[in-house]
Amino acid sequence: MLTLDKIYHASYVLKDVVRPTHIVKASALADDCEVYLKPENLQITGSFKVRGSGYKISQLSDEEKKRGVIACSAGNHAQGVALAATKYGIKSLICLPDGAPISKVEATKSYGADVCMVKGVYDDAYNEAIRLKEENNYTFIHPFDDENVIAGQGTIGLEILNEMPDVDAVVAAIGGGGLLSGVACAIKSLNPNIKVYGVQAEGAPSMYESIKQGKPVSLDSVSTIADGIQVKEPGELTYKYIKQYVDDIVTVSDDEIASAILKLIETQKMIAEGAGAAPLAAIMYNKLPVKGKKVVCIVSGGNIDVTILNRVIKRGLLMSGRQQTLCVELQDKPGQLVAVSTIIANHGANVISVHHERAGEGSDVIGCYLRIVIETRNFDHIKEISDALTKAGFKLI
Amino acid sequence: MLTLDKIYHASYVLKDVVRPTHIVKASALADDCEVYLKPENLQITGSFKVRGSGYKISQLSDEEKKRGVIACSAGNHAQGVALAATKYGIKSLICLPDGAPISKVEATKSYGADVCMVKGVYDDAYNEAIRLKEENNYTFIHPFDDENVIAGQGTIGLEILNEMPDVDAVVAAIGGGGLLSGVACAIKSLNPNIKVYGVQAEGAPSMYESIKQGKPVSLDSVSTIADGIQVKEPGELTYKYIKQYVDDIVTVSDDEIASAILKLIETQKMIAEGAGAAPLAAIMYNKLPVKGKKVVCIVSGGNIDVTILNRVIKRGLLMSGRQQTLCVELQDKPGQLVAVSTIIANHGANVISVHHERAGEGSDVIGCYLRIVIETRNFDHIKEISDALTKAGFKLI
Repeated sequence: MLTLDKIYHASYVLKDVVRPTHIVKASALADDCEVYLKPENLQITGSFKVRGSGYKISQLSDEEKKRGVIACSAGNHAQGVALAATKYGIKSLICLPDGAPISKVEATKSYGADVCMVKGVYDDAYNEAIRLKEENNYTFIHPFDDENVIAGQGTIGLEILNEMPDVDAVVAAIGGGGLLSGVACAIKSLNPNIKVYGVQAEGAPSMYESIKQGKPVSLDSVSTIADGIQVKEPGELTYKYIKQYVDDIVTVSDDEIASAILKLIETQKMIAEGAGAAPLAAIMYNKLPVKGKKVVCIVSGGNIDVTILNRVIKRGLLMSGRQQTLCVELQDKPGQLVAVSTIIANHGANVISVHHERAGEGSDVIGCYLRIVIETRNFDHIKEISDALTKAGFKLI
Repeated sequence: MLTLDKIYHASYVLKDVVRPTHIVKASALADDCEVYLKPENLQITGSFKVRGSGYKISQLSDEEKKRGVIACSAGNHAQGVALAATKYGIKSLICLPDGAPISKVEATKSYGADVCMVKGVYDDAYNEAIRLKEENNYTFIHPFDDENVIAGQGTIGLEILNEMPDVDAVVAAIGGGGLLSGVACAIKSLNPNIKVYGVQAEGAPSMYESIKQGKPVSLDSVSTIADGIQVKEPGELTYKYIKQYVDDIVTVSDDEIASAILKLIETQKMIAEGAGAAPLAAIMYNKLPVKGKKVVCIVSGGNIDVTILNRVIKRGLLMSGRQQTLCVELQDKPGQLVAVSTIIANHGANVISVHHERAGEGSDVIGCYLRIVIETRNFDHIKEISDALTKAGFKLI
């Protein structure tokens, strides 16, 4: 049974495990409400997950502790379980799908876990974990559908109220729903007037659909850059608590998430993973009724693979009109490159890269193409430059 | 005269201007010492600079405040002055060289400053600022060589001692030297046993050279990715204080700085600019005698342009053996790409991009090249893969 008492107890137990993360006021993030961030990306292991696994593991019997724990995860849960188990001096084995990013595998090992790489995808790793649990009598640590795990995540709700008792609304992402279940229970139990909202990725709206249809549903496929919340099916417990405590759930697109990640980098100097940036994306794109309110967005984690980060930054720049690729058809005669680059320079855009191509397939034999990537201020600025090029007789394609 | 009293006064005055930034323990950052971070990249405006300009502006006479302030900067100082002036309700004008990144120009405007774009480089913008100051009787806010500015930066030293009285060493980057002058004065005045170290970029070692030669020297040219500390000449005051208070100065290369930036992103989920990551680079590459010690690295700022960030991430991956470009000579017959990619997959590396090129200049007419970018664990892993390809008869070029 999930109770406020249990969450308070988790908060007491976790004092030796988690880092304090202080709320940050982030005024630049929205015009019409006051945005605050609870930066769990700065939490040890780079996400809130260590709270749930930490409390869960702390409450195991001595017998269970002796046998060790097992978990299956491609990301944050793996690192949370590994660290918490090591803190309590017990053994942990984590099953990972063999396509998991190298950085996450290495991080999991560095926290002291044994790692078992399983051929296939998450479901294969899950099945192998269950098989190993049966075979060796390990305790399985579920990533979300467990009262103690949920209570551990709920400590974030207590911390928010402690630091900011006058908050109007709290927003968190939903994957399996453990984080939001715990946070919503803590907050609504103490002050039912505070709104609690959930956010899911458009490409993985399992809880959103479940609440809409009035019963837990399982999606056939899910796809989003927010891999931390790419979950096909809510938990039984988490479905129940979210139905009970949460005011509303909305969805955001991958492009909206990418913009939010970029905004956090540029204005807050923080790395958020897709799931961590989703609540801010919901605020930035006006998905929630929070005009004039004090809103805390939980930035749940920062474990984003750097190669994906590079792509997200690029996408975020495109989405906000800060970068544009122009493809200009040129006649193959001297001075054309000078003419184009002069126009661009005169309009105050920085050139990032230039690719000049002769007579390929599909182009006129005597013509050539210029692909030029420029850094711009916004969409108006892009239009201004395109118009100037067109006016000077260049054809944009 | 810079005194501990003045730094304490600045600390009192700045309570309404700055954000509290809490020290973070970052155990993953070094093996043989305990590393802590003072994250001034999370400071409002994204750097510590708002402390110095904030205190300086607070101490202006009413008459001076009425006339407004002017500053010249391509980066953090601009934003610090803009925000501080706006906080105290006075006008600010910032001269920026017209090549300054758009993001920094926009940020400066957003904090309420008027911006004057000056054709040319920093020195041109500086000259224009001085001209405008004379013409309009503005107060010029120097970025570092000013007792009140230095006292403002010194408040970081007080905060470090307050939060971590048992620190053994404090490390900060040096550009003009304002930050380290203030911090060193605060720390050495309270506890002379704590070591205070400075770090400069190899490409801009003006204070390093000055201390070595026993007099302030001016460098002909400076070049580093750490644009925040790309300064040709130390200040008169900062030279004096650093000579008096600082134990040693070391330099780090751009590649070392890039690795440190990447390390902060991956393990701490924080964006640091080059100057902000320089102290950590000095620790990571064993430039300082801190074995077994508790060391606080001041992460002075996070204002790095995202396009540069992308490049730095890539460079950092290369530097740490996490990414490699292989160029393989292939015979132009079917199945070659399969063979190469099978070998790479069998050794557990992820393929990021593939570029397959036929018979260009310099290649055999019947041959072709495969440029393949892979994600790897470390340098040993790269060698393992290269060896396997060579053994299978492929020629790496």
